[in-house]
Amino acid sequence: MAVYTEVSDDELSAFLADYDVGALLSYKGIAEGVENTNYLLHTEKGPLFLTLYEKRVARHDLPFFLGLMEHLARAGLTPTPVRDRRGRLLRELAGKPAALVAFLEGVWLRRPQPRHCAALGRTMAELHLAGQSYPQRRDNALGLAGWRPLYLRFRSRADEIMPGLSGIIERELAELEASWPRDLPQGVVHADLFPDNVFFLGDRLSGLIDFYFACNDALSYDLAITLNAWCFEADHAFNLTKGHALLAGYQSVRALTPAESAALPLLARGAALRFLLTRAYDWLHTSREALVKPKDPSEFVRRLAFHRSVRAASAYGL
Amino acid sequence: MAVYTEVSDDELSAFLADYDVGALLSYKGIAEGVENTNYLLHTEKGPLFLTLYEKRVARHDLPFFLGLMEHLARAGLTPTPVRDRRGRLLRELAGKPAALVAFLEGVWLRRPQPRHCAALGRTMAELHLAGQSYPQRRDNALGLAGWRPLYLRFRSRADEIMPGLSGIIERELAELEASWPRDLPQGVVHADLFPDNVFFLGDRLSGLIDFYFACNDALSYDLAITLNAWCFEADHAFNLTKGHALLAGYQSVRALTPAESAALPLLARGAALRFLLTRAYDWLHTSREALVKPKDPSEFVRRLAFHRSVRAASAYGL
Repeated sequence: MAVYTEVSDDELSAFLADYDVGALLSYKGIAEGVENTNYLLHTEKGPLFLTLYEKRVARHDLPFFLGLMEHLARAGLTPTPVRDRRGRLLRELAGKPAALVAFLEGVWLRRPQPRHCAALGRTMAELHLAGQSYPQRRDNALGLAGWRPLYLRFRSRADEIMPGLSGIIERELAELEASWPRDLPQGVVHADLFPDNVFFLGDRLSGLIDFYFACNDALSYDLAITLNAWCFEADHAFNLTKGHALLAGYQSVRALTPAESAALPLLARGAALRFLLTRAYDWLHTSREALVKPKDPSEFVRRLAFHRSVRAASAYGL
Repeated sequence: MAVYTEVSDDELSAFLADYDVGALLSYKGIAEGVENTNYLLHTEKGPLFLTLYEKRVARHDLPFFLGLMEHLARAGLTPTPVRDRRGRLLRELAGKPAALVAFLEGVWLRRPQPRHCAALGRTMAELHLAGQSYPQRRDNALGLAGWRPLYLRFRSRADEIMPGLSGIIERELAELEASWPRDLPQGVVHADLFPDNVFFLGDRLSGLIDFYFACNDALSYDLAITLNAWCFEADHAFNLTKGHALLAGYQSVRALTPAESAALPLLARGAALRFLLTRAYDWLHTSREALVKPKDPSEFVRRLAFHRSVRAASAYGL
């Protein structure tokens, strides 16, 4: 939780004068959000979300992200980025790239149930279909090709996190590099659909947020990420009911090809490795004074072990 | 900035079911606030502010604070605390005392102008008048009698903050203890009306927040606090135009007695010492990992020196 950049009332009012949002009524720095600084604004035209992009988001990627949100908002999947009177989505505020987005009502679920997994599956498939017509593209910086370079940045210290971790990662990297599926249907994926990025109003999914890892990759890799993010319990056990609900929800909108189904265990291993790598890196590189505490990497070691034990996609409820 | 206590969606929905506020639409932890954890809620009935009281606020004082806010809200000075269906202002949530308050629109001014000081003066006088009929009372734990004990808790380390600080504090304590005015008109005072506790919509003061230092004390001591908090510039110079606006605004609603006017320089010294002491204590006792960075005590050393040079209240613009 963090507000990295303070915005003064004068700066903000001057910034908003370029938008058709009426006068500013209030603004509050939001404690959630690891990467960026976020403010919740109340204006005469309603609530808005203001994001200042901090250094972890590359400026040259912002047009892709904001354009994608606008594209997906037309399908009702995301809150709408607000253009200023000159048509700009991306502006500058307090020395940082900044964007204004309609505020999305909803809460993220600390304990999602199978019906929520089903709703997520349906919505993710809708995202994949809507993304087919999005003209921009962005490579996945945290895809297969990015994993080994990331690992090499902390290899010498990996075992500080957990004895034997370097061996686990190296074996997995070697196996995935040799067998990663390459001919699966591609498109725009969210690539970070953890529960805190999916909002619900009651049992209705109200929208998706935080597209700052979105990229072009295998559509079914997105599904593999959500299997990791939504279908394990606090005791690290895989919940087959949730897995089934997620996959059935997805397939009610977009059927998986036989190749995608067959690849699911391998994709799930890759997804677990990707979050293991970034969390391990953050764990070793977050200063003790940081505003944001790093997340524990070890839960992805356990998920990886589960996926390695899986022989077919039926183990996920397919 | 801090959210010390995380509240889950299930806990919050269960908590809100006891209030007539409709369904929860969203909630966000707010980064501002040093003492407590705050969430901004959107509900079907509108926005609300939820506060969880952390250890720095004494639980036995909460009925005084919440009752006072409710009392002052009737005069339009504060947002209204919301009672649950059983009439309770104070509840418990996530193991902490908790209260729900109507959300007050407005922004606090990073650079208040003389017209804002005038508005603050008027509103503070209204607060003092409305407070006369508030039946509860609370002694000022950070009044004259509290200063020396607080100082003794960090005396041995005071000069770490600034060479000579212990001498400055000891001389001031001795002089104020000998000459502190005791027969001034008393009543409920806010006692912490810094700019971040005063909200404006344009140039209109929309309300006062954060009553967690409110207590019974000399009314003119409250004015002395705001002279310190609102009328010095970034270069530490006293702004006579702002001082005049503040005092004239106040007197347009409630005239100061001759004794209050005469006491103003001494009260201003006491107010500067009070914030010097608490900031010095926090400076020495805030761990490096704390979520909230302590405020610089030294600016109150400079303000204290100014007040010591003042011979009469006319120097403040009276």
